[in-house]
This record gives sequence, structure tokens and C-alpha cells, in this order.
Amino acid sequence: MASAPLLAESRVLTLDQPLALDGGQQLDGVRLAYETYGALNAERSNAILICHALTGDQHVASPHPITGKPGWWVRMVGPGKPIDTDRYFVICANVLGSCLGSTGPASPAPDGQPWAMRFPVITIRDMVRGQVALLDALGIARVHAVVGGSMGGMQALSFAANFPERCAAALVIAATARHSAQNIAFHEVGRQAIMADPEWRGGDYYGVEGKGGKGPEKGLAVARMAAHITYISEAGLTEKFGRNLQARPDGTPGAKTFGFDADFQVESYLRYQGLSFTDRFDANSYLYITRAMDYFDLAEEHGGRLADAFAGSTARFCLVSFDTDWLYPTVESRIIAHALNAAGCPVSFMELSAPFGHDSFLLDVPALDRVVAGFLG
Amino acid sequence: MASAPLLAESRVLTLDQPLALDGGQQLDGVRLAYETYGALNAERSNAILICHALTGDQHVASPHPITGKPGWWVRMVGPGKPIDTDRYFVICANVLGSCLGSTGPASPAPDGQPWAMRFPVITIRDMVRGQVALLDALGIARVHAVVGGSMGGMQALSFAANFPERCAAALVIAATARHSAQNIAFHEVGRQAIMADPEWRGGDYYGVEGKGGKGPEKGLAVARMAAHITYISEAGLTEKFGRNLQARPDGTPGAKTFGFDADFQVESYLRYQGLSFTDRFDANSYLYITRAMDYFDLAEEHGGRLADAFAGSTARFCLVSFDTDWLYPTVESRIIAHALNAAGCPVSFMELSAPFGHDSFLLDVPALDRVVAGFLG
Repeated sequence: MASAPLLAESRVLTLDQPLALDGGQQLDGVRLAYETYGALNAERSNAILICHALTGDQHVASPHPITGKPGWWVRMVGPGKPIDTDRYFVICANVLGSCLGSTGPASPAPDGQPWAMRFPVITIRDMVRGQVALLDALGIARVHAVVGGSMGGMQALSFAANFPERCAAALVIAATARHSAQNIAFHEVGRQAIMADPEWRGGDYYGVEGKGGKGPEKGLAVARMAAHITYISEAGLTEKFGRNLQARPDGTPGAKTFGFDADFQVESYLRYQGLSFTDRFDANSYLYITRAMDYFDLAEEHGGRLADAFAGSTARFCLVSFDTDWLYPTVESRIIAHALNAAGCPVSFMELSAPFGHDSFLLDVPALDRVVAGFLG
Repeated sequence: MASAPLLAESRVLTLDQPLALDGGQQLDGVRLAYETYGALNAERSNAILICHALTGDQHVASPHPITGKPGWWVRMVGPGKPIDTDRYFVICANVLGSCLGSTGPASPAPDGQPWAMRFPVITIRDMVRGQVALLDALGIARVHAVVGGSMGGMQALSFAANFPERCAAALVIAATARHSAQNIAFHEVGRQAIMADPEWRGGDYYGVEGKGGKGPEKGLAVARMAAHITYISEAGLTEKFGRNLQARPDGTPGAKTFGFDADFQVESYLRYQGLSFTDRFDANSYLYITRAMDYFDLAEEHGGRLADAFAGSTARFCLVSFDTDWLYPTVESRIIAHALNAAGCPVSFMELSAPFGHDSFLLDVPALDRVVAGFLG
């Protein structure tokens, strides 16, 4: 079967209605940058909404505009792939608060200056309100499925709970229904690292001259390094790097230098992860999105009982966890599965074995492909 | 039984011989600040050498000179306690590279200026060489036991392996025979946080005016926050803080502020841990000591086979791990136990159940008290 080449349609929607936020404020003129793949059918019933993770974006299966790297889920989304763009109309929007074209702290406030820290603190539900506004604009009453991993999974849960009539299915991968104390703690380290950087300037670094005007790059790199450790399993780090030393510039095997350069490969890898991140992400967006994740507690939003969050839902659910994910371990998915059972929702729940830790949802895990393809049908 | 009151003798030894380091350098005039408790018997056979952890010090059971807090192991060391100062002569020295009186990067180099980053990179074995030089000066040929938790346990292992004739027993708590990729990764985050702070000034912050001349306080606080998360179990953080919100200043129950203050108790706790640490610890010492820990690989030092490290040992060993310690989990102690078995060394190995994670060795774990008292005899 010859599949059509994958074309990404990139657009920006400006909402004509203000977006009401959980914090009590309203945001006017919200812009949502999004991509679509495939074609909406005549019944407008074949849409799949993909929600991205903390540092993800709408470039699911198109090259990243800054890094030029392939989209973050090319292995999952495309013609004949588990999320099959020959059959489904795939939508992914940059979340509210982010920095790849949607409204966030780097966007102009009504006074024409960047919002910076004047931007209202948002929640996962606020992000979902943005997704629903996008579906409204696209004339899609109900998606075939809402799909996401990590923070994308939180949005999928929030979507299904708060807008139950708008989805027929929810696929939630490597996620949690609430951020734990340890989750919050790691995010707080990252925020403090950013705020400790004098180039952060209370958030008002946009357009500042010197050092490229790029803001708290060092602090953001440290934040990314700390977070990145939580995305990989201990065993994965050991298998990938162990205590291997960096080869010398002349190609000879590495040796301890008795200095503070990156002697170990894992140090070099982490430094690269930190530095490369600062080229593509806004530090204030990192503050706001981590805050939204820390605030996330789906049970709390619904009177304290998680099952009540799903009381109105008619969707089918699929939950996937990974056995090496210590950020949102399997027990968190099990809690969601129990709540869905208690609410009488159809749910399938699988713990998959994969060596990569939390990042498994982005990586080569053939079992995940089969689960996704099977659930979407 | 009336026990004598506990008196700490505080002294500083200046070595009259240069200390040869693993990095190839020699350090002249090394100073070692140490405390002793109890009395050395006539046979000089009742000494117990306690080795402290990364941010610990010689104030095992005496008030900290800066914070005024009780010594870090008062619950374990004293008259009638598991390490009984009525029976044993207890010695603890501030490790080489630290900042509580022993030679480290804040100490004057031969040119009279602080060493700062000119200080040689040291290893765990170098620290142990310092401990042995102290025993030499005290006229102690062989200690009844060398005891330590965390980095102190690494020193106890290194001591028993490299100076087998100098100890009759080694008690190793919550330790590892080598730093894993994940261990190194967390330390690297801390080092990068310190070095990213412009107040670090390449390490030359001593005596610099402004901001109290206290150096990279913000970076050091972030480093401490990241490390502190690894000292506590996820379940421990959940039990202690969960998602509890900070009470308002007026005493009313906490609520989300939709801002970036410490809404969650765990945020406030971590911030306090970070800030209070900077009052008592030197950032360059933190760099050097974490580096020493990352370099630690006892097998590598002995041809790649851990059992060979203990080939010459006649000591009894006791290994203790904690079931909630994810920094140096039980599997690391098991690896050491297997190596000791292979080397024919007498070893008892216990995994204790305690809710506090890695920090259990410092906290109220009665089972640990019994193990320590029983092993020391």
C-alpha cells in the first residue's frame, strides 16, 4: 500500500473569546500554534488530539523549527504508523504557557511588552481549555481520541474528566493523576536554579542586551539537567554510560583528569542536554509549565475523590506505564485504573517493560506501538 | 549505671610528612581537625574511627560550631550508647578537602592565598590516607573498628581494603563500592549549579566584598536541594509533606497562590535545606568532595575485581543497607557482601527497614542501634 507523503499543516489560531483561567483571570486574544496531519472526514469524527509533554511542542512529526530535528513522535505518527495519518486527522497544539508560537510569558501583554512574570499562573485544565477552544474553532465536537504521554497524559486525563462529551477515548501514557511531593521537589530545584541566575532578572530578560539576551541560560541548563535525570532509569544510565570515561580529544581512551572537566560520559551527556535545551526553550515558560504540573491534582479538582472526576465520562480509557519509570511509576497509573473502575469506565491498563525509564514513551518500544494501534482501532 | 558526661576533645593535627595523593601531587603541612571522645586504653586497642559523610564533620557528638545544633550522631555515640564512649576511644576527623578545620580549598596554599581551584583533586583513598596519618600521630596501630555511613562507609571500605592491618573490623552503612552513573549525574548537577553562579568566580570568591563575600550561595543552595531529594525516599517525602500547602502567615490553612512562592510545604522545606546549608559549608569543598565520591570505584583501584580489594584483609565486616535508600540501594551492599564472601572475609549483611531513605543512617532507627552495638561487641 502506497501511503501519501506526510504533510504538516502549521497554523496559528487566535481565540475570539477570552480564556477563563483557574486562577480567576481571563486571557484575551490567546494564540494557539498548532499542526495537523491527515484529513478531517466528512463526519468530522476522525480527529485525534495529541497533547505534548513539558518541553514538547506541536511539531509531532515535522522538523523542529529551531533544532531541525525530526518531530518528537515521528515513530508513532504518520501514514501506516500506530497513529495513522492516512485514517486520522491528527491535531497537536503548543500548550498555553509554552514558547513555540502559543501565548505564554514571552508573548506580548496588552501593553505591548512581554508578559514575563506578569503572565497568570496556569493549570493543566487551563491548557485543556485551550485545546477545547481549538477543537471548537475546527468544528470538531468530539475527538476519536485524546492522546498524550507525561504532561500530555495529564492533559488527556483532564480533558476526559472535564470535557467528557468531547472525547470518545483517552490514551494516557506514563502519566499521573497528581504530582507527588518528590515530583514537586524536582521541579522546585529547577525553578530555583532558573531564579538563582542573575540573568533571569525577575523574568524581565527579554530583549536585554549582552550574552545574546537569551536570559538565564545557565540556570535553565541546570534545571534541565536535574529534570533529565528523572526521565531516565538508573539501570538505563548504567547501561548507556556506566562509569565510562570520555575519550580524549586525540581519540585515546579516557582517563581521570583529576580536574573538573567532564571526565565521565554521563557528565558530558548531561551538560549537552542542559546546554542544547536553552537554545529551544524559554526559561519563564519552564517556570509556568512546571508550576501547572505541580498544581495538578485531578482528585482535588473533583471534591477529593478521583473516581468522581470520571463520573460523567463515556470514553474508553487506555493507561500505559513503564516498569522503569520512576518519575510517574506504575503505581500512579494503577491508582487511575482503580478510579476508572470505580467510576464504571471501560479501561485497559498495561505496564510495559522498557529499559528507558520515563522517556520510554518517546523511544523505541514496539510494545507501545502495538498498544496504541490496537486501542485506537 | 552512672555514665561520665561526654567530653569532646577538639584538636588540630598538622602532618609533618607530605601527604601523597592519588592524583600524583603531594600536599605539605596538611591540617586535620578532629575530635575524640572517651579514653584510649593502655593497650591502645579500643579506638573506633568514625568517618563522616559528604557534608558531615568531626562534630559527631558535640555542638556544631556554626549552627549550634547537636552533633550529627549524638544518638549513636556517647556513654552507654551503641558506640559507647565509656568503653571506646572514639575519633572523628574532618576529611581532607572539607571546610571545618581540615585542609581544603579554602585553606591557604604555600603562597598564602586560598588554594581555591588550585587545590588538587582528591580521592576517597586520599581522605583515608589522612585518617591513617592521624592514627599514626595518635600512636594507634590498629583500630577496634572503622565505622561510617554514606561517604563515611566508602572511607571505611577503602580503609579496610588499603590498610588491612590497621583495622580489626569495618562497619559500613548505606554505602556503595562505586558511584553509579546516576550518582555521578546528581553530583554533576550540583557542581554545575555552583559553577553557574557568577559569585563562584572560578572558585576565587574568598574574601571578595559584596553579598557578604560568601561566594556562590545561590548555586550551592540549588546543589544542596537537588542532593537532598536523593537522601529521602519518595514515600518518606509523601508521608512528611505529600501535597500539603503552607499555612498562611496569619495561620489560616494554605491555599494555592497562583504564584511562585513556596505554596507546597515540600518547596519550603527544600528551600530551607538549601539556604541553611550555605551558612555552614564551603562551595569549593562541595565540588572537591563530590568529585572524590564520583571517582570512587574500589574494584577499579584493585585491578577491576572487587574481591581482590579485600584479599589482604583480616577484618570482620558488617554491611547495613536500608530498604528505602535509592541513592545507594541494597543491591550495592549486596555486591560488596558477595565480594567479601569471595575474598573469604567474615561479613554480616543486613537490609534494615526504615522509612527515611538514605538518611536513615542518621535518624531514629532502633534496629540500626542494635546492629551497631552488637557488631562492635
